[in-house]
Amino acid sequence: MKTLAVFIFPKIQTLDLFGPIEMLGGFRDQIKIKLVAETSDPISTIHGQRILPDATIEEGPNYDLLLVPGGDAAIDAGRRESATRWIRATSAEAELVMSVCTGSILLAMTGVLDGRRATTNKQDFKETIHLGPRVEWVKKARWVHDGKFFTSSGVSAGMDMSLAVASHLFGRKAAEWMADGTEYAWHTDPDWDPFAEKSGLLGI
Amino acid sequence: MKTLAVFIFPKIQTLDLFGPIEMLGGFRDQIKIKLVAETSDPISTIHGQRILPDATIEEGPNYDLLLVPGGDAAIDAGRRESATRWIRATSAEAELVMSVCTGSILLAMTGVLDGRRATTNKQDFKETIHLGPRVEWVKKARWVHDGKFFTSSGVSAGMDMSLAVASHLFGRKAAEWMADGTEYAWHTDPDWDPFAEKSGLLGI
Repeated sequence: MKTLAVFIFPKIQTLDLFGPIEMLGGFRDQIKIKLVAETSDPISTIHGQRILPDATIEEGPNYDLLLVPGGDAAIDAGRRESATRWIRATSAEAELVMSVCTGSILLAMTGVLDGRRATTNKQDFKETIHLGPRVEWVKKARWVHDGKFFTSSGVSAGMDMSLAVASHLFGRKAAEWMADGTEYAWHTDPDWDPFAEKSGLLGI
Repeated sequence: MKTLAVFIFPKIQTLDLFGPIEMLGGFRDQIKIKLVAETSDPISTIHGQRILPDATIEEGPNYDLLLVPGGDAAIDAGRRESATRWIRATSAEAELVMSVCTGSILLAMTGVLDGRRATTNKQDFKETIHLGPRVEWVKKARWVHDGKFFTSSGVSAGMDMSLAVASHLFGRKAAEWMADGTEYAWHTDPDWDPFAEKSGLLGI
């Protein structure tokens, strides 16, 4: 049984969080999920739903897997020393670290992606990748796998990345079983990214 | 401003709930979301995340839009008279009613889909559609639109259906803007459904 820590913070993007939870949470004999926040207060998502944390960062960094979702407020979390210290320590302990959307910027702000290839959502390429100046940012990618890091592009891409992680951990057949069971059309190619061109990103 | 009631119950399927919330919640100047439960106690999703309701069914059925997500426990909710009475009353008041996955079975159990075309997930076609004997169940469909009802097939299909609802309410351009912003490859054809064949459903 592996424990997955999901770092949550106020105004978190709803699907950044719950897309991966759907795709990984179904492996319930293999993965136990804990939502970890800075305090034990309820967290409101960007769309207003209130979620109760399962643990706080005070309880330490001892998890097998880490997921850092995004949302505009991820940048604020990246400026809080207690949050970045916990993410850094948990990344060091974990065998596998994931991020979705602006969660990649938050992960980059902690320094753990320095010298790594990574991706994020299209808007962040225009506005916030400067916050991770030593990361090799990949513009056109559904997700990027480098070492123990799986970083994904915007919101929905977290589901494709999570299925890639399921495939990595439990085998391709298991990941396909999960995609079919949730009637999800998994984009299995990490380089599939029509949104890179659509957003005009490839020209800048 | 339209109010959207999302009916939640214990062991609700995570993405049935939060996929549509992501796709509709982004229209925050047009839609206000309320999670409505049978009591004010926190609800645990099937994957264990605890969510706080925003309202209870005691507060009445006065909403513009209704979403009924699924999960195995939707059938149990369909056997609780207080729950089905609220869903029936809210459906009657609402201008538009949505369901995802087993949420379609729950909706059918209240009687509001009688004489309507509707769809649900592949497993339910094999096991539970008998609970809605007067519904015209459509095996191969990503979602079905009949009158004010939009019913979708399994889990992930709720996102495609929700974007179709966004298109219906706010126009195609607005729905495409939401899909692109969340980097979601929207399946715009309601008849697109590779899972119907994959699941062996078309042969039975």
